[in-house]
Amino acid sequence: MKSKIITLLTDFSAKDGFVGTMKGVILSINPKVELVDLSHEVSRHNTLEASVVLRTSYHFFPKGTIHLVVIDPEVGGSRRAILVETEKYFFIGPDNGALSFALENEKVKKVIELTNPQYFLRDISNTFHGRDIFAPVAAHLAKGVPVRKFGTPTKEYRRFTLLSPRIHRNGVSGKVIYIDHFGNLVTNISGGLAAKLAQKKMVISLKNFKIDKLSKTYTDSQPGQIIAVVGSNDCLEIAVNQGNASQILKAKEGAEVDINMLK
Amino acid sequence: MKSKIITLLTDFSAKDGFVGTMKGVILSINPKVELVDLSHEVSRHNTLEASVVLRTSYHFFPKGTIHLVVIDPEVGGSRRAILVETEKYFFIGPDNGALSFALENEKVKKVIELTNPQYFLRDISNTFHGRDIFAPVAAHLAKGVPVRKFGTPTKEYRRFTLLSPRIHRNGVSGKVIYIDHFGNLVTNISGGLAAKLAQKKMVISLKNFKIDKLSKTYTDSQPGQIIAVVGSNDCLEIAVNQGNASQILKAKEGAEVDINMLK
Amino acid sequence: MKSKIITLLTDFSAKDGFVGTMKGVILSINPKVELVDLSHEVSRHNTLEASVVLRTSYHFFPKGTIHLVVIDPEVGGSRRAILVETEKYFFIGPDNGALSFALENEKVKKVIELTNPQYFLRDISNTFHGRDIFAPVAAHLAKGVPVRKFGTPTKEYRRFTLLSPRIHRNGVSGKVIYIDHFGNLVTNISGGLAAKLAQKKMVISLKNFKIDKLSKTYTDSQPGQIIAVVGSNDCLEIAVNQGNASQILKAKEGAEVDINMLK
Repeated sequence: MKSKIITLLTDFSAKDGFVGTMKGVILSINPKVELVDLSHEVSRHNTLEASVVLRTSYHFFPKGTIHLVVIDPEVGGSRRAILVETEKYFFIGPDNGALSFALENEKVKKVIELTNPQYFLRDISNTFHGRDIFAPVAAHLAKGVPVRKFGTPTKEYRRFTLLSPRIHRNGVSGKVIYIDHFGNLVTNISGGLAAKLAQKKMVISLKNFKIDKLSKTYTDSQPGQIIAVVGSNDCLEIAVNQGNASQILKAKEGAEVDINMLK
Repeated sequence: MKSKIITLLTDFSAKDGFVGTMKGVILSINPKVELVDLSHEVSRHNTLEASVVLRTSYHFFPKGTIHLVVIDPEVGGSRRAILVETEKYFFIGPDNGALSFALENEKVKKVIELTNPQYFLRDISNTFHGRDIFAPVAAHLAKGVPVRKFGTPTKEYRRFTLLSPRIHRNGVSGKVIYIDHFGNLVTNISGGLAAKLAQKKMVISLKNFKIDKLSKTYTDSQPGQIIAVVGSNDCLEIAVNQGNASQILKAKEGAEVDINMLK
Repeated sequence: MKSKIITLLTDFSAKDGFVGTMKGVILSINPKVELVDLSHEVSRHNTLEASVVLRTSYHFFPKGTIHLVVIDPEVGGSRRAILVETEKYFFIGPDNGALSFALENEKVKKVIELTNPQYFLRDISNTFHGRDIFAPVAAHLAKGVPVRKFGTPTKEYRRFTLLSPRIHRNGVSGKVIYIDHFGNLVTNISGGLAAKLAQKKMVISLKNFKIDKLSKTYTDSQPGQIIAVVGSNDCLEIAVNQGNASQILKAKEGAEVDINMLK
């Protein structure tokens, strides 16, 4: 039986062999590890998108899983490399906010800046720290090296503020933070808040489109209808039954979504 | 050694972390399982396409393999969730026909409607049964839970009729049922039938294109030539040597392909 | 613990289930093997591209890893099928040059033409030797079958000459041999040679674009700037900081890249 799981989340795509290379590095150090891809199709350098994919997936893995998140536009520059230990998981990657949406949900125990070259590859390139730093650290961690050995304790890590909607007297003002493969528009408004507001008369608006109820499923409406639904990652989603909401509503990441109470 | 294989076939794409999430669910329940991707690039909601990919692949896996097939346009609606046990394999997914092309080849032993929530996740969303129902059922099945424990025995499952060509006095009338990554046009005419008809004088036609023989390989013709060949999934294929038949012949899924005997 | 790693590199894409099928064949013969994808998104029939992806990745895997490389435009024709044993690795695939860039770095011990059907599937199609020949050979090799059993010893394998740049009195004339997912233009000029030439005054040119220094990282320049850098696969790369060099410079595989010394 494999002892530990390492998940991989990058913007490297499946094309170039970069992900395979990271797996080779990991298995060379620690052949007992189980490797699971979260996604390698995050849009180039899009740390926000990565943070949503991670938040959607990470908590379905067994306790002790190591999540390796390498979206790294500043590789070779001055951004820090970190390892975060929470009550249930480990997170490793460049400190650029990609971890922050998941960490909001977690009890953070330790944050370590990765400074100990003993657990890196011997030659460190300036262009591929996924291979040279993050993959080997994950492999050694899975082997049982204690967290504190990897570097210097620190308190801070970068957070996206954008991930919280603005709650006001009359409801909530949020944003589209992710567009999934089906074109569904995932917002930063939590499912719980949306459900609470939808108990009274309200209207959900995105651009000129108005929706006056929260649907239970994608299918309890006519095909082609614009609906609001709590998606599988527990966020309010704007969707089109059997259609692509992003294309039909011409909406992108950052588009405003409001819920306003009706008097 | 991993004890059981679970394959995954979806239309989720590699982008959103949905497949990774299902794997997290499975490994949380049963860490001993071996996970193999069949495809996650099935066209959205295209159960026919999934049925062809499954038929192409499933029988190359060891006895006892569990095939998890989640193309689920009606998720949250009234479609049933099923588990099918055949002499050699297990198949799990929404009952929408995606399994039927594979099951045509198999000796079906049991069909169970998945109704026992004991083997689901505790919270069931209305939008992602791949994660909440199908993945956990597969993981428990791989752990040795007996098939009958998962729900209610039933006799029926949905079948695609479209998968059988029409045999007539003068030959056979079939259809393109799948277009592969290379643009090859896979038909519903079996390789055996095509080979038998091709022993005498015949003509294979698709739109205005006529082909008067069955080639042995893609390469025993000039580059650019339109050929008919028995593909690796044992169906008649229309292909273009080193070209993309779908683009060159402007043919799509559903296009008619006929073999007519010449007198 | 899995005893042996088999990597897979193909142009099959993730769509059709062909890769899953190969994995099913391998696991049916040898369930103890660990399977790692290098890439399945190599451009159709592009053996040169495959050779670069392989070269980038193969040497990060543990000793004894089996690299299965199936880009096979001539399947069913007269091209040979080979197994190459080097001091550290095994390489299996059609003999069309895709292995040669990696083999340049390796001490070749044995080249075997795969002629022994005992280690193939029983039925050999004319269209999918990845499944019928290469996958089963890899699985049996991982099980411990000695290399010589798979066929006939031979001396030769196909090599790409294009992979070596032309060194002249005034510098070096190379070519773009690969364009990665980010649009970076990877050349056949080694990082060592580029670094040596860059110690003196020189100019790197591609089309009308001139670059007068070698950057350490993608980021030690303005966003949008055209730079030259030694990439993670130790080749000279032409890149655009946070941009897509291939699109911006309208450069493709085969484009000339020169380093000329200034007097």
